[in-house]
Amino acid sequence: MILLLSRNSSYLIEARKGKLHTKDGIFNLDEILKKNFGDKIKTHLKKEFMMVKPNLADILERAKRGPQIIMPKDAALILAYTGISQGSFVVDVGTGSSFLAIFLANYIKPGKVVTYEKDKKMVRIAEENIRLSGLSRFIEIKNKDATKGIAEKNVDLVTVDVQNPEKVVKQAYKALKPGGWLAVYSPTIEEVIAVTKKIRELNFSYIKTVENIVREWQTERTTRPKTMGIMHTGFLTFARKVN
Amino acid sequence: MILLLSRNSSYLIEARKGKLHTKDGIFNLDEILKKNFGDKIKTHLKKEFMMVKPNLADILERAKRGPQIIMPKDAALILAYTGISQGSFVVDVGTGSSFLAIFLANYIKPGKVVTYEKDKKMVRIAEENIRLSGLSRFIEIKNKDATKGIAEKNVDLVTVDVQNPEKVVKQAYKALKPGGWLAVYSPTIEEVIAVTKKIRELNFSYIKTVENIVREWQTERTTRPKTMGIMHTGFLTFARKVN
Amino acid sequence: MILLLSRNSSYLIEARKGKLHTKDGIFNLDEILKKNFGDKIKTHLKKEFMMVKPNLADILERAKRGPQIIMPKDAALILAYTGISQGSFVVDVGTGSSFLAIFLANYIKPGKVVTYEKDKKMVRIAEENIRLSGLSRFIEIKNKDATKGIAEKNVDLVTVDVQNPEKVVKQAYKALKPGGWLAVYSPTIEEVIAVTKKIRELNFSYIKTVENIVREWQTERTTRPKTMGIMHTGFLTFARKVN
Amino acid sequence: MILLLSRNSSYLIEARKGKLHTKDGIFNLDEILKKNFGDKIKTHLKKEFMMVKPNLADILERAKRGPQIIMPKDAALILAYTGISQGSFVVDVGTGSSFLAIFLANYIKPGKVVTYEKDKKMVRIAEENIRLSGLSRFIEIKNKDATKGIAEKNVDLVTVDVQNPEKVVKQAYKALKPGGWLAVYSPTIEEVIAVTKKIRELNFSYIKTVENIVREWQTERTTRPKTMGIMHTGFLTFARKVN
Repeated sequence: MILLLSRNSSYLIEARKGKLHTKDGIFNLDEILKKNFGDKIKTHLKKEFMMVKPNLADILERAKRGPQIIMPKDAALILAYTGISQGSFVVDVGTGSSFLAIFLANYIKPGKVVTYEKDKKMVRIAEENIRLSGLSRFIEIKNKDATKGIAEKNVDLVTVDVQNPEKVVKQAYKALKPGGWLAVYSPTIEEVIAVTKKIRELNFSYIKTVENIVREWQTERTTRPKTMGIMHTGFLTFARKVN
Repeated sequence: MILLLSRNSSYLIEARKGKLHTKDGIFNLDEILKKNFGDKIKTHLKKEFMMVKPNLADILERAKRGPQIIMPKDAALILAYTGISQGSFVVDVGTGSSFLAIFLANYIKPGKVVTYEKDKKMVRIAEENIRLSGLSRFIEIKNKDATKGIAEKNVDLVTVDVQNPEKVVKQAYKALKPGGWLAVYSPTIEEVIAVTKKIRELNFSYIKTVENIVREWQTERTTRPKTMGIMHTGFLTFARKVN
Repeated sequence: MILLLSRNSSYLIEARKGKLHTKDGIFNLDEILKKNFGDKIKTHLKKEFMMVKPNLADILERAKRGPQIIMPKDAALILAYTGISQGSFVVDVGTGSSFLAIFLANYIKPGKVVTYEKDKKMVRIAEENIRLSGLSRFIEIKNKDATKGIAEKNVDLVTVDVQNPEKVVKQAYKALKPGGWLAVYSPTIEEVIAVTKKIRELNFSYIKTVENIVREWQTERTTRPKTMGIMHTGFLTFARKVN
Repeated sequence: MILLLSRNSSYLIEARKGKLHTKDGIFNLDEILKKNFGDKIKTHLKKEFMMVKPNLADILERAKRGPQIIMPKDAALILAYTGISQGSFVVDVGTGSSFLAIFLANYIKPGKVVTYEKDKKMVRIAEENIRLSGLSRFIEIKNKDATKGIAEKNVDLVTVDVQNPEKVVKQAYKALKPGGWLAVYSPTIEEVIAVTKKIRELNFSYIKTVENIVREWQTERTTRPKTMGIMHTGFLTFARKVN
């Protein structure tokens, strides 16, 4: 995959033959195939673009679908608060479009993410996204309902992004190693209430619920927060298994 | 290092002989030396703790000093927005207590972080923190003023956390590879204004300034945001070098 | 004026003859003229509405035009922080569509608001809105540039909502009585910087800049903050003249 | 009452004889009694103060006690959203220290506020605060439980600030006139859930829950939001009676 980058736009393309029509003009893809990252290319309108190697953030940005996806700001907070890193073992409940599983796999490889999704249709979408991410070796999808049981043991982190997350807490607790983390993403406050109640019934410490608001500023000509913005994505609840 | 974890408290200790006095009672450290991660230990007050292997978040939490440190929420957002990961090459301007350099090194190893700090006293504090982190192999401190020049080339990410960050922008631009990212952390809005002005004079795209507010909720008995909290740490300005 | 109110919609109308076509069906206005506040009326689709006496908030909600208008949340904060009330004397610099002048007049009558607007076109729009508000007796528009001079003396509150508000600070200071308040509304941070610098050169106390973020929650079926919302309107800077 | 105002401090005093010891030095109160508003006075340390007529905001600021008091930002939002003004008739359920009743009375006089408080001890505190406010003629305290019945009819606004506010909704509905407003202040989200559920069972429109976050900025030397601040006071739920 190649990222075509100019000052005002960018295009993520797969290396292939043919033409690409864009609002900046037509790219000749045959020509791109002969060049390397770091080279320049022009559209037929003489607009110049750099050929740049995309990173996972570039790929995920284009892969994402639906407003219900976990956003980078929230996925990154899970990393920061739980301290998981290279070599960690993660169970991810509620694969969805697999954004979170891919994000985490990228930072914990050669560790592994096992991700549970009971909806077969979602499994197929997730598989396609995981293929695009190039991280298939580090992610295993299970087409199963995690409330019925999580087979993994000695897990460093269990992430949960499903409706009625409280139903997974006990299984997550069993799967975690002592000192391991549970991180629950829930759009509604009713889910926060239900899941923290369940967490308090078990031997968890470091219980904490937060919301993470990223506010974008405009800095051209004048400096001020943008008028409209995303006020809410989801609440994140963290807890750490004692024993 | 060992993390002693119970439901209501935790202690990070280095493996050594002797006694540790805490509000939960006295730990017999000699006894701990004979045990393994996953074992339990009791204080003389019969309070039980798990012996857990600490991760980097545990170590950083204790290492941090001063309110001016970059917080995990902000460091993590840099990861998420720039997409840097294992193998990336980072230049970090303004080492300070080296929290950011350590955080990034943990996710980009076997990549490398070169960190600039002109204040000799800070260099010594940073060196001690880096030693504690166990990431010395992936972090190089330079006791130099980055506004005078950044020697590195083809860099994936330059982070800046110094006063008058606008003075580093040109050097950062030269160090970056096409598609590489600049991330500036600035507590004040005057710095945002100065740095984005400078960024717009160069061939950068994806220019974006955000603030990241993490709001903590109380979930015991009743559910509500905590009354007091951290309203502001710093603004993060991102830009991506085109060419 | 009459407010027609049902559970799911409302219409603000002036008492007149004829028909009113709405998405809830057609209202027979002749019939309304024969009824009183508190009576019910049905559209031709049999949808029932109450006839309610509108208050100023109802009228202002419909009168407002353009995104640059000061919002009720910000106008109300000026009331709350400055403590002006019935009988106060206010100078309002930058009438615009006169929303703020009307809002304040409603609470300080039989006091008076003198409002300055240098743009003749805006004066005409403001005059029409003031007429609709029924508060003409308490509001005087001056088609003048307040930076050239504010004739009023012994003023309880000067509000400023113009570009380059720092140019009005000295005139505002002269107009205020000891203990009187200045309240500046500024969308950009550059204006905050300029205006607070000017304020500090004069004998003001209680200097304070705030932003006021109203975040709306969804409470149907589930409970959560609305995804999108207004992140920013303007900064409010307050200062109180000592002498 | 007199407000003594300098650039860096202020004192609210009752006119009386004697001395007042402050961190700015000693005020000779006998001397103050001979002077008028607008005159200056010096402490024995030669610090100069203006004698200013205090407004209700000055008095309320000093009268307030306990963190559970409704804050001016929230009280003002009730004014702004409901549009009540001079002459309105208000029922206030849960007098507490009577801050809200006093705030509203100040803007709706010669209208009236009837305020319900079942706790006799709170009634006595409230009476003292109301006396200080000088608004006794416009406020009536009833030492009664409003869940047992609200005697008033044809009310413009019912405010509720008690635990389990859902128990008052039906009584409030009966007391309101068509087009009248209910405004509920609730610190916890459980109360929001309960009260909006109850509201939806009755013939209310314009149902809306918000939170109002005032974020203070520092503007001396550099410009930035203050590091710590009040993250939460309470949720405000509004609803308007149809019939």
